Amino acid sequence: MATLGDMGLSAAINILSALVFLVAFAILRLQPFNDRVYFPKWYLKGLRSSPTRSGAFVTRFVNLDWRSYLRFLNWMPDALRMPEPELIDHAGLDSAVYLRIYLLGLKIFVPVTLIAWTILVPVNWTNHTLAKSDVNYSEIDLLSISNIPLGSQRFWAHTVMAYAFTFWACYILQQEYAKVARMRLHFIASEKRRPDQFTVLVKNVPPDPDESISETVEHFFLVNHPDHYLTHQVVCNANKLAKLVKEKKRNQNWLDYYQLKYARNQSQRPMMKTGFLGLCGEKVDAIDHQTAEIERLSKEIPEERERVINDPKSIMPAAFVSFKTRWGAAVCAQTQQSSNPTLWLTEWAPEPRDVYWPNLAIPYVSVSIRRLIIGVAFFFLTFFFMIPIAFVQSLANIEYIEKKAPFLKPLIEIKFIKSFIQGFLPGIALKIFLILLPTILMIMSKFEGFLSISGLERRSASRYYIFNIVNVFLGSIIAGTAFQQLNKFIHQSANEIPKTIGVAIPMKATFFITYIMVDGWAGIAAEILRVRPLIIFHLKNFFMVKTEKDRDEAMDPGSLGFDTGEPQIQFYFLLGLVYAVVTPILLPFILVFFGLAYVVFRHQIINVYNQEYESAAAFWPDVHGRIISAMVISQLLLMGLMSTKHAALSTPFLLALPILTISFHLYCKGRYEPAFRRYPLQEAMMKDTLERAKEPNLNLKAYLQNAYIHPVFKGGDDDDEDEDEIFEKLEATVLVPTKRQSRRNTPVPSKVSGDSSPSLPDLQEKGRP
Amino acid sequence: MATLGDMGLSAAINILSALVFLVAFAILRLQPFNDRVYFPKWYLKGLRSSPTRSGAFVTRFVNLDWRSYLRFLNWMPDALRMPEPELIDHAGLDSAVYLRIYLLGLKIFVPVTLIAWTILVPVNWTNHTLAKSDVNYSEIDLLSISNIPLGSQRFWAHTVMAYAFTFWACYILQQEYAKVARMRLHFIASEKRRPDQFTVLVKNVPPDPDESISETVEHFFLVNHPDHYLTHQVVCNANKLAKLVKEKKRNQNWLDYYQLKYARNQSQRPMMKTGFLGLCGEKVDAIDHQTAEIERLSKEIPEERERVINDPKSIMPAAFVSFKTRWGAAVCAQTQQSSNPTLWLTEWAPEPRDVYWPNLAIPYVSVSIRRLIIGVAFFFLTFFFMIPIAFVQSLANIEYIEKKAPFLKPLIEIKFIKSFIQGFLPGIALKIFLILLPTILMIMSKFEGFLSISGLERRSASRYYIFNIVNVFLGSIIAGTAFQQLNKFIHQSANEIPKTIGVAIPMKATFFITYIMVDGWAGIAAEILRVRPLIIFHLKNFFMVKTEKDRDEAMDPGSLGFDTGEPQIQFYFLLGLVYAVVTPILLPFILVFFGLAYVVFRHQIINVYNQEYESAAAFWPDVHGRIISAMVISQLLLMGLMSTKHAALSTPFLLALPILTISFHLYCKGRYEPAFRRYPLQEAMMKDTLERAKEPNLNLKAYLQNAYIHPVFKGGDDDDEDEDEIFEKLEATVLVPTKRQSRRNTPVPSKVSGDSSPSLPDLQEKGRP
Repeated sequence: MATLGDMGLSAAINILSALVFLVAFAILRLQPFNDRVYFPKWYLKGLRSSPTRSGAFVTRFVNLDWRSYLRFLNWMPDALRMPEPELIDHAGLDSAVYLRIYLLGLKIFVPVTLIAWTILVPVNWTNHTLAKSDVNYSEIDLLSISNIPLGSQRFWAHTVMAYAFTFWACYILQQEYAKVARMRLHFIASEKRRPDQFTVLVKNVPPDPDESISETVEHFFLVNHPDHYLTHQVVCNANKLAKLVKEKKRNQNWLDYYQLKYARNQSQRPMMKTGFLGLCGEKVDAIDHQTAEIERLSKEIPEERERVINDPKSIMPAAFVSFKTRWGAAVCAQTQQSSNPTLWLTEWAPEPRDVYWPNLAIPYVSVSIRRLIIGVAFFFLTFFFMIPIAFVQSLANIEYIEKKAPFLKPLIEIKFIKSFIQGFLPGIALKIFLILLPTILMIMSKFEGFLSISGLERRSASRYYIFNIVNVFLGSIIAGTAFQQLNKFIHQSANEIPKTIGVAIPMKATFFITYIMVDGWAGIAAEILRVRPLIIFHLKNFFMVKTEKDRDEAMDPGSLGFDTGEPQIQFYFLLGLVYAVVTPILLPFILVFFGLAYVVFRHQIINVYNQEYESAAAFWPDVHGRIISAMVISQLLLMGLMSTKHAALSTPFLLALPILTISFHLYCKGRYEPAFRRYPLQEAMMKDTLERAKEPNLNLKAYLQNAYIHPVFKGGDDDDEDEDEIFEKLEATVLVPTKRQSRRNTPVPSKVSGDSSPSLPDLQEKGRP
Repeated sequence: MATLGDMGLSAAINILSALVFLVAFAILRLQPFNDRVYFPKWYLKGLRSSPTRSGAFVTRFVNLDWRSYLRFLNWMPDALRMPEPELIDHAGLDSAVYLRIYLLGLKIFVPVTLIAWTILVPVNWTNHTLAKSDVNYSEIDLLSISNIPLGSQRFWAHTVMAYAFTFWACYILQQEYAKVARMRLHFIASEKRRPDQFTVLVKNVPPDPDESISETVEHFFLVNHPDHYLTHQVVCNANKLAKLVKEKKRNQNWLDYYQLKYARNQSQRPMMKTGFLGLCGEKVDAIDHQTAEIERLSKEIPEERERVINDPKSIMPAAFVSFKTRWGAAVCAQTQQSSNPTLWLTEWAPEPRDVYWPNLAIPYVSVSIRRLIIGVAFFFLTFFFMIPIAFVQSLANIEYIEKKAPFLKPLIEIKFIKSFIQGFLPGIALKIFLILLPTILMIMSKFEGFLSISGLERRSASRYYIFNIVNVFLGSIIAGTAFQQLNKFIHQSANEIPKTIGVAIPMKATFFITYIMVDGWAGIAAEILRVRPLIIFHLKNFFMVKTEKDRDEAMDPGSLGFDTGEPQIQFYFLLGLVYAVVTPILLPFILVFFGLAYVVFRHQIINVYNQEYESAAAFWPDVHGRIISAMVISQLLLMGLMSTKHAALSTPFLLALPILTISFHLYCKGRYEPAFRRYPLQEAMMKDTLERAKEPNLNLKAYLQNAYIHPVFKGGDDDDEDEDEIFEKLEATVLVPTKRQSRRNTPVPSKVSGDSSPSLPDLQEKGRP
């Protein structure tokens, strides 16, 4: 059992490491040569450019103004200063609402902490149960529910508090849901024209022996939506083409690298191996090889492109159908088209940026089978992931290595190395697995066939959350692997399970406090330092960058990463709710996490991240649902714990809590969720009418014509002349030619460009000397 | 334990009583004076009328043709002869599809029975486990799984059979779901014009300080559905008016009764008491009293009617909105209208006959609270209903009666009466409760706020099914009340529960066989006799009937009673699926039930029942879902049973069964359920186009104008002149006056009238000499 002293030491270490990260960040961000690592968002918005060539050579790389170092925490107030409407304008609604999750944590837990400390801590403290008993206890346990004698009337305080906290949390959750729903509707209503407002994704177009897919779609919608249908774009299976284009790009990067290398050291032609990862195979002249590869691909790509466009087999039975009005699109997306509900499936088209193109090629039957497979696979992943890892661990022991690679024996036998391997190796397989887990979950979601990136991330997030609950939360409380737990629970009666877990909860408080400090405090502080992007940017900058455009490409702003970030926050909600009544001393640690994370992520969203898509906060129902489930878990566990405390009178009162919480959830679901899933006709009609009044001569068809072209037909900067041909072939209609710019340099289309918020760059500049 | 001899005796008794019922029916139905009891459907369709006055007086009441009695089972082939399309024409799709549930039972269980008897019975029979053991067993157990020794390899046969039965059942279920979905779509498509095809029920119209509800609705839909909105009808809270009208009608009936009485015996004016149920209170002249009452009501009704129409408070925030096209209505019903999802809720309007008017007055918030309350109430009803009954039973014992009513003592002390009371009284409270249960469940559903009678019946049916599973199925298998079971299960581990139940299953086979014979065989045979309607009709006929119209009203055709009938069938599905592998000897008994019930209900549907509404088989997803849940229950119980048999190798193979079954269910849900919940636009458009081509000058507005008027404004035959005034006031638009006939005498509007199926009456007549 950790004493208060131990905890203090641990806290000191973690606070110190967090401070180190923050100071390092403060210093690094002031160096001009790191500017593109710490302020990429402004570059992408075109509001900032590389340091000018004027001035001393050194100052272009290093900041020599010593005064700026004194104010090393200045970024914090800066990050907080931007008002929310501006933030939405600047970074999109998704990011702004994501930040509200941290705020929600503060809103729930600040009053809970205050009340718990004024009421529960004295109630727990003024007992002598632990002091009298001969169990091993720490000072922290004196403040927890463990210090109350069995059958005491004091448990009424905990029961009442459980009710108070639940009502408070529900109140805040309801307020927040209402607010986010309003923000979403307002965002959608005030947005500029966007292609997805007019467009519906139609899947499972039935094959017709006499007509092409494109004709079938056109006829169907001309018949069934005669007043509203405008145009459509068929979906091509361009996955192979996309692969080729990607390959060419990679080769181009390598070519640049080798050419730069050769330019710096002309004495020696760079060589490379052609085999796997450049580790084996024939050794060839790198520049020649890459040039030849690029030439080959330059030939293959147009051929493949030709094939995709002309081969009817590459046209998928899906199409993006656009309507004349938002009303027409809203109607089509929400209704069933055909009497066979597996044909002509319609749904809102995701934003063009948000479409996950490879999955558009998956047929319906396959999707349901895939979903089943992934469901089973995820079950096994959650409960049995330890089996392969244990197997790898059994291989990675010293005896096995010595047996398989006897030549290493003398080296391994050195005492220091041996102990290092023994201590390190068994954990490494698990560590690698945990690092790979989000990727594995994302691959699973992709396999399941979701059509939008936001959908993929939402699904991965919910899987990650479940994995965390089972393996981190329950796994830490009850020792043993998830499978052992499962086995134990199956053999236990239904009302024993909360007891088993509930009893162990107060004992694990110190463990979770340490966890919060390591993962929540130091981890969040490390996030702001962006070590990996920092290193990669400088490597790229050194090896590959020739032009300003290359430098732009070398930037890796990253994005919020909903699939990993949100489950992490949810885990803190769970801890806070579970321990609020049991061990209130844990609450301030969670408050620090929410506060710090809010500031850090607000800074990152303003200066760094560049969201790949905008889903208009479509994830909020998930966030809300998971907090509700955390509340129900905490209530059940509290009931389990209380029932072992002989508090026979107060425990039955807790029974109503989960029922009330779930009813509240159902109410919220009915009241607010439709705002996130459907598009009300009233809003659509209003926007349509306004637009018709403002721009009566708008050529909508031209606007929507190419909105949903596969990016591989759009992206290539070097084949601009081909492109128009392709469009013409694909559409066979008149085009209004527009000069497309490389998307990387232009502000993201859905955002208002810099003009509308002139204070932003000034504000940002003022913050930096 | 019952021996084969016992079973045979029981079977003989039940077969005999079933035969008695059938013979009694055969005799009674041939008597002309029972014609209106056994053939009311034909009277309602106007295809049959009272026996003519010609002929001998006796033959008008009694059938003297002895030959007709010889063919007393002739009604059976007659009932089977009508082909399904004609049946749909004659009685509606609901009835035709309801019959398919029995057919489905036959389709599933005939092959299952054959295979089980050829494979499982020999496998079970050729063992000597029970003979060697010293447990008490019956011959039936020799054919069951109990006869297999522990750990035998023969359990593989049961495992394989469980798979075979599951696959067969799923195959048949899928075929049936597809067929019913097709039938539904075809029925809807081929139907004549019906008001509900064009109409949407709008609830939660937001209040507007400047406009009446009617104006708000009109403006909203003129703005948001400008091309499609046609007209609307507001909903009045006419519950009080309906009550008054009902009261007047009851008084009228009594007046008729007393007048008839007085006419027969003029020596004495009939008297009545004014108090509760005519049991207490002042004694007055009955004819004068009733006349006065009717006069009072005749004054009050127009006043109340005036109030309902003119008082804005009696207008509910709901309206039936009609559209110009089916397309427009389909769009409006499936989309969200307002950004606040609790306002302007739209759903398909039920058929006018199907609307449950009193519930239209319930606001949205109240509905969710009501749902929660009823959920909790149903939980308590299911698990704790024994508590009040036990309390009543404790009161209804002899000592208590003697104490409270000492004057009864001499009577009670007679030995015969005492033993009768002792044997009979304790059971009577339970029996009364079970008889009242469907009514209680229906009241619960009504309280929940469903808006259509079909919805009420579906909800009651699913509750009744759950009650049956918990209290009849589990209650019979495990002795003890549901609450004791619940308590036991909570204290048992999750995988112990199927074991506890599974082990008891083979032992209860004889009990359930007896149950099937009593409830399924004799009960169904009694259904056809219609004892209660028979008695009531003759009583009414004797005491109140003066005119032919009165005689029409005295008929009580009844209807299918989905809320009680369907759960009964489902219970047999459950028994069949559970015992198919365990004790196959039970299967033939179930086959007889399905066969007999099919014939009986086909006869009743053709000749007797008059459906109150037509939901176009909207109940099928419920039927399908309950059979699936019965399959999953049977699989879990089989797993529990097998795991106690030391069949360690074969049991794990059963694990995949519930997963496969549930996946199958999800697939079916996705594939077929939308056909029952939504209305595809393609179909709507097709019908619209056809109609426009056929009847270009149709005045749809006139057709829809008064379709959804509260029946209380329509029903009164005697206030025809008032009515038109009311319509004018309510609608304030031009009306096309149509002469409405009393609905009782006309064929139900949605059905094709007799002309289209001229063979029906002939066919029916041929069957009767």
